[in-house]
Amino acid sequence: MLSTLLFDNFNKYARITDTDFELIEKVLAKRFVKKRRSLLTEGDISRYIYFIEKGALRSFTVDKDGVEHIIQLGLEDHWIGDLSSFITQAHGNVSIEAIEDSEILLLPHHELELLYVQVPALERYFRQLFQRAYVSLQQRLSSTVSQNAEERYRLLVSDFPQIAARIPLIYIASYLGITPESLSRIRKQLLH
Amino acid sequence: MLSTLLFDNFNKYARITDTDFELIEKVLAKRFVKKRRSLLTEGDISRYIYFIEKGALRSFTVDKDGVEHIIQLGLEDHWIGDLSSFITQAHGNVSIEAIEDSEILLLPHHELELLYVQVPALERYFRQLFQRAYVSLQQRLSSTVSQNAEERYRLLVSDFPQIAARIPLIYIASYLGITPESLSRIRKQLLH
Repeated sequence: MLSTLLFDNFNKYARITDTDFELIEKVLAKRFVKKRRSLLTEGDISRYIYFIEKGALRSFTVDKDGVEHIIQLGLEDHWIGDLSSFITQAHGNVSIEAIEDSEILLLPHHELELLYVQVPALERYFRQLFQRAYVSLQQRLSSTVSQNAEERYRLLVSDFPQIAARIPLIYIASYLGITPESLSRIRKQLLH
Repeated sequence: MLSTLLFDNFNKYARITDTDFELIEKVLAKRFVKKRRSLLTEGDISRYIYFIEKGALRSFTVDKDGVEHIIQLGLEDHWIGDLSSFITQAHGNVSIEAIEDSEILLLPHHELELLYVQVPALERYFRQLFQRAYVSLQQRLSSTVSQNAEERYRLLVSDFPQIAARIPLIYIASYLGITPESLSRIRKQLLH
């Protein structure tokens, strides 16, 4: 089996059999991405979504002043990608880079569309994945409006303790939409 | 058949047979909502998503200063709801009200979960619906940052000419995040 991590992840949400998984494995490609190397660049069409086997990556946009805004911080056992571009197969505005040396499985758009027919349980899995993505985008939006930086940091630590522990401060600050200095101050206050 | 509009809508995206649709119809409820009456109130758990058979509705949040922010303007042949609350079955912060006298079909959350098993094509339909919802939420976000009010209004008119023609100016302005006066000015400029 190419990846027991992905197999188990599928089976958290849908009933994917060994036979199903053999079909899925056929279209997966494996890639190693060194720290600081790029997986997707702004302007690309996102032909894949990426399942993180090992490591850590970030997805981000860059505004007209050249400032990076982090959309997602992803660790192993999670998907990362430019979902909008992947869904529409139009040019996206998201870049993805590795924060640590990473191992990635690539699931191609066209093959996934064909797999939905062969493996209906995949439809269930991705219906739920898109539901969760929608909810988390919506929550991200609301929390930017209704919570201050400290509350958002507390929530990140409680939801994703691994991210707070492993990801460099500069990226967490960008994800929260604050300066690294502000995040340092918040961390110090929380220690007291 | 309870609703040929919904049957045809399903079949735009998935292959729902007459037999499938008979199963679906069993869990649907029909409701008439008079103009200005409420379908969902902030704080409710959204137990249904609503298919608009006839009429027009809006979904909105109200900020701490009592100002209404419109999330969605919905006409017939479209779904409307508090998707996040519907997915998570947690209390939501969205209200829904009728802009015109409307006829609505209610699809209940619990029954939909059971139907996915009986009618796998529904899984396909809603996988795509959640994909579209994700993309449109993301686009809404980006356009608020990167487009001015006139560009956003032009886009609305070209994507949804019916909305621009039928929905009162005050609601379109709230949807675009501008004052009714600004929208009047934009409309006048576009006429010249």
